[in-house]
Amino acid sequence: MRAPRGTQDILPGTSEKWQYVEQQLTEICRRYNYKEIRTPIFEHTELFQRGVGDSTDIVQKEMYTFEDRGGRSVTLRPEGTASTVRSFVQNKLFGLPNQPTKLFYIGPMFRYERPQQGRLRQFVQFGIEALGSNDPAVDAEVMALAINSYQELGLRSLSLVLNSLGDQESREAHKNALVKHFSPHREELCSDCQVRLDQNPLRVLDCKKDKDHPSMETAPAILDYLNEKSQSYFEKVKGHLDRMGIDYVIDANLVRGLDYYNHTAFEIMSKAEGFGAITTLSGGGRYNGLVEDVGGPETSGIGFAMSIERLLMALEAEGVELPLESALDCYVVALGDKAEDESVRLTYQLRKAGVQVEKDYLQRKPKGQFKSADRMNAKYVVVLGDREMENNAVSIKDMTTGDQKELPLEEVINYLQERLAGGKQ
Amino acid sequence: MRAPRGTQDILPGTSEKWQYVEQQLTEICRRYNYKEIRTPIFEHTELFQRGVGDSTDIVQKEMYTFEDRGGRSVTLRPEGTASTVRSFVQNKLFGLPNQPTKLFYIGPMFRYERPQQGRLRQFVQFGIEALGSNDPAVDAEVMALAINSYQELGLRSLSLVLNSLGDQESREAHKNALVKHFSPHREELCSDCQVRLDQNPLRVLDCKKDKDHPSMETAPAILDYLNEKSQSYFEKVKGHLDRMGIDYVIDANLVRGLDYYNHTAFEIMSKAEGFGAITTLSGGGRYNGLVEDVGGPETSGIGFAMSIERLLMALEAEGVELPLESALDCYVVALGDKAEDESVRLTYQLRKAGVQVEKDYLQRKPKGQFKSADRMNAKYVVVLGDREMENNAVSIKDMTTGDQKELPLEEVINYLQERLAGGKQ
Repeated sequence: MRAPRGTQDILPGTSEKWQYVEQQLTEICRRYNYKEIRTPIFEHTELFQRGVGDSTDIVQKEMYTFEDRGGRSVTLRPEGTASTVRSFVQNKLFGLPNQPTKLFYIGPMFRYERPQQGRLRQFVQFGIEALGSNDPAVDAEVMALAINSYQELGLRSLSLVLNSLGDQESREAHKNALVKHFSPHREELCSDCQVRLDQNPLRVLDCKKDKDHPSMETAPAILDYLNEKSQSYFEKVKGHLDRMGIDYVIDANLVRGLDYYNHTAFEIMSKAEGFGAITTLSGGGRYNGLVEDVGGPETSGIGFAMSIERLLMALEAEGVELPLESALDCYVVALGDKAEDESVRLTYQLRKAGVQVEKDYLQRKPKGQFKSADRMNAKYVVVLGDREMENNAVSIKDMTTGDQKELPLEEVINYLQERLAGGKQ
Repeated sequence: MRAPRGTQDILPGTSEKWQYVEQQLTEICRRYNYKEIRTPIFEHTELFQRGVGDSTDIVQKEMYTFEDRGGRSVTLRPEGTASTVRSFVQNKLFGLPNQPTKLFYIGPMFRYERPQQGRLRQFVQFGIEALGSNDPAVDAEVMALAINSYQELGLRSLSLVLNSLGDQESREAHKNALVKHFSPHREELCSDCQVRLDQNPLRVLDCKKDKDHPSMETAPAILDYLNEKSQSYFEKVKGHLDRMGIDYVIDANLVRGLDYYNHTAFEIMSKAEGFGAITTLSGGGRYNGLVEDVGGPETSGIGFAMSIERLLMALEAEGVELPLESALDCYVVALGDKAEDESVRLTYQLRKAGVQVEKDYLQRKPKGQFKSADRMNAKYVVVLGDREMENNAVSIKDMTTGDQKELPLEEVINYLQERLAGGKQ
């Protein structure tokens, strides 16, 4: 029996990387004062229709939607923003004194896509949302947290790509210009783009099929249609990034796949050679209006999300070694039945005292037990044998130095605790 | 729009408890040398039919089963053991040199039950599995880890309840005795029990409806039907627990809801007064045979799982205060436009240096900013004003002592790093 297609098991040897990455991301969120929210794995389907957008690929083609036993349509969450905003509204977080509300999440998301390199049907996203402020400094903060997250983990070949989609008025002006520009070429565009031209012309710019059509090059850029307010907002965002010393490049064609963005839109790309081509690691943007779409009060919002799978691929591509502990604190070797019984007790006492201990559970001979200790890269090996038992003592060997000594049984715990301190608690 | 019935949002203020509990459980697993495995949220439905058991309530009534877009029947995992065993087999973990394979998992599980106190449709389980050894010392280790997990988090009113279900032969003998015992009362038992009497008579003992029927009291106990091998196994398990100093009580009626157990079965109960009645916190047992049922080689196994929701309820019931940090390292107050711009830069630099910092994003007046700092319980408040900006300096106030001083701007980072060291990294 196998795991469903497009899903994966994360096994020991790899799960330590996930733990490390998640700890680091949690630590970065602590510094930026984003607090964790955990929403359910599935939501009522309407949430995503409203909160992600009916015209998106996600909602039209990629959702895991089913009826529960009560006959209600539910959907495995395809992304994190809609659920977070739903929770913000349902739990009236907008009424709390500390605003904006700054949240982060890490968890599995689900999209029924063709499985391929770097795209799974179940994948894990880390994301943040800042709800309740339209200060351009928040846009800068979100981008800073995004790029810092990668930097702190050791990535270097990064690029922050920035655009402004402007406010409603600016977008309307740009939309009209796009329709005017592309309409003469309508028949030459792909069928998806013909629909997009009517429903959401901005997304024509995003099309992978038509990206080489000559009309793309000369298409009107949103940045030429920003009204004064939007222009000024964008300048402030860029000013903050400049002041922070964060590099960025402007790309007027950066659109993002979701319907709800306005003003700031950004992506973080990896230029690591291991990837072959330049790859998008994550993206985000401002979504003033989304909270109202989901039934809440008028509230500004901005967020970003990254795939942990892609992050791990980028670390691999750049050859970054994560600082993971692979050694075992202590292995207890028992020689003989009486020693075996005592080893169960000693192992337990050591673990209670905070020491990481392993012993044999397969009736291995002494030689096999020492081999296990070696294979697990034990820092210390404690030996309980008949001679030691008679003296109420153990032999203990420091595998780094090779030093070996006999210790009274009751002193082993303190001895190991002291020597292993400075490691994990 | 609301979260689906039987699911919950875990919000800031509560999510910190989850983080803490999960960190502690991960730390305990480190000591006992259990490594993390992460399996998909959904699996092919057959896995649970085979691996949990067709006759169980879970499979018959409680699964979230649906067809994916490819027409395959998949099910949101209702528990963790079947998935872990499937992964063990699929990834051939039985072939690795370090045996037994010791795994742990933490993640959401799904059962379509009537939502009630302490029972959610999406809940989180922490569990461990030790695969590949039939050493009674492993049974003791699993129970030790289980009870230690609660103890380390501060719970005191705990009870380990133990039973042996014996091997195949012992179970068969007991089953025959049960059928013989209950058959004369068949018509007096509930309809479920009449079916159980044919399919799995052991589970009649578990029935909530018939628990006061007079025939229950005199029912044959499995412990009287253990063959010599099973008896000896059980003695060894108890001997190890005695040696470790772990208290337990024997309950010959302890059965567990799943079909696949043999030999050791146990539960951990809370006697905390806050709960009212004695409550089961978690349970586990040995399941030799399950790996073969899922298509793998003959492999012994034992595991245990706890609900994190119940664990948190038990902590509440016993009034345990978790040691959570609620103070903010530093709040940056900016007075004036120029200071505001500089505060964006300084906040960023401090965060990059590892300091937790918040600032205002709502154009609050100075008084409002100081109030925010207070409300967030800031340890330090840094003030940037016109006077300070002119001197390229900041005022910094230690909110614990009330001490206030002026510092050159470039010294703030070192100053705070030093004073906050000893806290989190």
